[in-house]
Amino acid sequence: MTELTTVPKPTPTFPPVQTRAAATIAECRLLATMTEEPGRITRRYLTPPIAEVHKHLRTRMESLGMTVTVDVAGNLRGLWQPHPERLEKHLVIGSHIDTVPDAGAFDGVLGVVLALELVADAQVRTLPLAIEVIAFSEEEGVRFGVPFLGSRAVAGRFDHSLLELRDTDGVSLAQSIRDFGLNPGAIHEAQISEDAATFLEIHIEQGPVLDSERLPLAVVTAVAGQTRCEVTFTGQANHAGTTPMHLRRDALVAAAEWVVAVEKIATSPSQASASDQGLVATVGKLIIEPNAGNVVAGLVRATLDVRSAHDSARLEAVEQLLERAHIIATKRGLACEVRYKMDQPAVSMDEELTALLADSVEAAGFTARRMPSGAGHDAMVMATRVPTAMLFLRSPGGISHHPDEAVIEDDVAAALKAAGLFLQRMAAKLAIQSQSHQ
Amino acid sequence: MTELTTVPKPTPTFPPVQTRAAATIAECRLLATMTEEPGRITRRYLTPPIAEVHKHLRTRMESLGMTVTVDVAGNLRGLWQPHPERLEKHLVIGSHIDTVPDAGAFDGVLGVVLALELVADAQVRTLPLAIEVIAFSEEEGVRFGVPFLGSRAVAGRFDHSLLELRDTDGVSLAQSIRDFGLNPGAIHEAQISEDAATFLEIHIEQGPVLDSERLPLAVVTAVAGQTRCEVTFTGQANHAGTTPMHLRRDALVAAAEWVVAVEKIATSPSQASASDQGLVATVGKLIIEPNAGNVVAGLVRATLDVRSAHDSARLEAVEQLLERAHIIATKRGLACEVRYKMDQPAVSMDEELTALLADSVEAAGFTARRMPSGAGHDAMVMATRVPTAMLFLRSPGGISHHPDEAVIEDDVAAALKAAGLFLQRMAAKLAIQSQSHQ
Repeated sequence: MTELTTVPKPTPTFPPVQTRAAATIAECRLLATMTEEPGRITRRYLTPPIAEVHKHLRTRMESLGMTVTVDVAGNLRGLWQPHPERLEKHLVIGSHIDTVPDAGAFDGVLGVVLALELVADAQVRTLPLAIEVIAFSEEEGVRFGVPFLGSRAVAGRFDHSLLELRDTDGVSLAQSIRDFGLNPGAIHEAQISEDAATFLEIHIEQGPVLDSERLPLAVVTAVAGQTRCEVTFTGQANHAGTTPMHLRRDALVAAAEWVVAVEKIATSPSQASASDQGLVATVGKLIIEPNAGNVVAGLVRATLDVRSAHDSARLEAVEQLLERAHIIATKRGLACEVRYKMDQPAVSMDEELTALLADSVEAAGFTARRMPSGAGHDAMVMATRVPTAMLFLRSPGGISHHPDEAVIEDDVAAALKAAGLFLQRMAAKLAIQSQSHQ
Repeated sequence: MTELTTVPKPTPTFPPVQTRAAATIAECRLLATMTEEPGRITRRYLTPPIAEVHKHLRTRMESLGMTVTVDVAGNLRGLWQPHPERLEKHLVIGSHIDTVPDAGAFDGVLGVVLALELVADAQVRTLPLAIEVIAFSEEEGVRFGVPFLGSRAVAGRFDHSLLELRDTDGVSLAQSIRDFGLNPGAIHEAQISEDAATFLEIHIEQGPVLDSERLPLAVVTAVAGQTRCEVTFTGQANHAGTTPMHLRRDALVAAAEWVVAVEKIATSPSQASASDQGLVATVGKLIIEPNAGNVVAGLVRATLDVRSAHDSARLEAVEQLLERAHIIATKRGLACEVRYKMDQPAVSMDEELTALLADSVEAAGFTARRMPSGAGHDAMVMATRVPTAMLFLRSPGGISHHPDEAVIEDDVAAALKAAGLFLQRMAAKLAIQSQSHQ
């Protein structure tokens, strides 16, 4: 007969990663209830639900022992310092908490909630690592028509003229900052400290690549550069019944021929290598005049959106596409006019940091798929200030900016594992750097 | 030295044809000032400017000794009878006096003013010919969305359910007829008399064919049949930055590929003979969703308008075009849906009467270009009731339904000459028929 012995009391254990992944998703779903429009997720810059999210996240940050502030651009920032008595290099992790109208529950917010999970993780592992978590309050550009206002301020890329922007109600950006209880004149104070060593953003892919390849994670190599222009074909509007085919100067057929050519050129063998680097060319919008079933179209304005992680590939494609537009127009006796709307170079992620992130993904047991991001992110702005890396999570069905936007729990767990290992590696690296400087 | 003799007094002479052509154009310009919208020519069915035109034309008809009435459909009708004491077969000549919004000064009205010139001409030549001139008050279908209301009533093709149509102000067709002082219940009384032997319409071409061939006149062989349908391509809306080319189901590229194919099929060698008969195929309108520069289009609704004087050519072309739409959609993993909106057979002009008109054009010294009309006209409706012929005048630049719509004075003179000869031939023919019946 064995004697009853004292069973050791269970110490409060850190939950397993799968449980934390489920909690992360639940937290995102909870934050999604903080919205301007009941029944839809809409949370624009400096609106009341942004303050509500701040309040909720502040409680969480404080429970983690972080020092919490709202900077003058309205970004919520929490700093975890294992050794608050001494100044030291720290990691910055973050993403945005604003949304597009009728959004999903994960675009941006997921990266903020995961950042706090990583702080908790670092604390449990007693990593000698200071971490600043930033919840950028503006990324989508919905309220004032200009995106990345939060990260622009943090990266020191905020042009003061932006304060004059007005929302659809006529409220200026400066006024909206004042209304939020902040001082727009001190916007430079939002700039990140010199102690910020690196920036990491975790975000959903918002595209179908990982889903189509059945992979949970990707390491972002660059944010694609982008050219946007408007191509106008001007022919002659004519009666669809009385104008023989050979006497037409049909702007819609010309535009259509070009739309087909855009797809063909963007997918041609000569663009094959560029395609691996994510060259995409899109005509998404046509304005047709008069756009009537019984009138041959006289004028068509077509948008062109070309993106690539490689600026040379993008610029070559744009040149070729616009040349083709002119050739088609000339052949058909039409006029063709091009107006440039945007020409933004690609932004590469930091090579060393990206390699470290890829290494962490593989160490966690996953494929380190490298891919460019076709959409803009805060990481693109932060990369102009500090070495930056970015981790993508699979978007099921490639769906984003839509209520059906989702994440898979296993993928969130994978991101937690990989990013946790990344933090360990960063801690080791910063410790070595710190020693070598002492 | 010669004696001064009495110079014969000049008798009031009939002006030369060129003067009458100039007067015809001036008369059309005057009628163009009678409009619903100052500064623009807009004259819809049974609006006050229609009554103003009636008043003006009534005076002219009465000065020609015609018996003038407004029928229950609101058409102004003047009857010239050289021998009012006896019933006899008569010619009907006419066109419409309503206009599209912001119209030109000649579409329709020219044919009415010329008809009155022809009555004057017949009187001067003392042709033994009774002539009824009809100014149809509705042809364009602007006010009630259904065209040819005037000629439908005259031809006995007016369906009583049409009286329930409502304009954009909610006024029913029946009410608008009552408001004009007429009795909609008696619409059958507008039917043309059994004595009407033939119908002639003179109209501007409203297309570029005669202008491109430098010809003043054409004899219409048929009014083209017409198929209208809507083809919907449904793919998947996606982010233009994050969706690689090979993972797209772009509804706009599919529609564009089809628009190009529509032009190609309509101008292919296999359609060459049909093309001589005026086969035209037009995609004039696209509804694109979401129609945003940075979103791959998810859905496109395209109109298709196919016309030909030969029904078999039209139906074959439509079949081929819709088959192509399905092939393109299937190849791209899209859905394709077709909805038929209209399927109207071609209407041939009377062969004998058309030959007589062509003969008159040539006798007047001009080329008798034969061509189908791609647009609908009152002649199309009248042809279902009486032998009908139609004469086209060149439209400079092919421009119509536009304030720049014009006619050339020499062409109007040519039409007067040719139609005058046509009346002489008709008078001779009717006299022979009349004798043979006596």
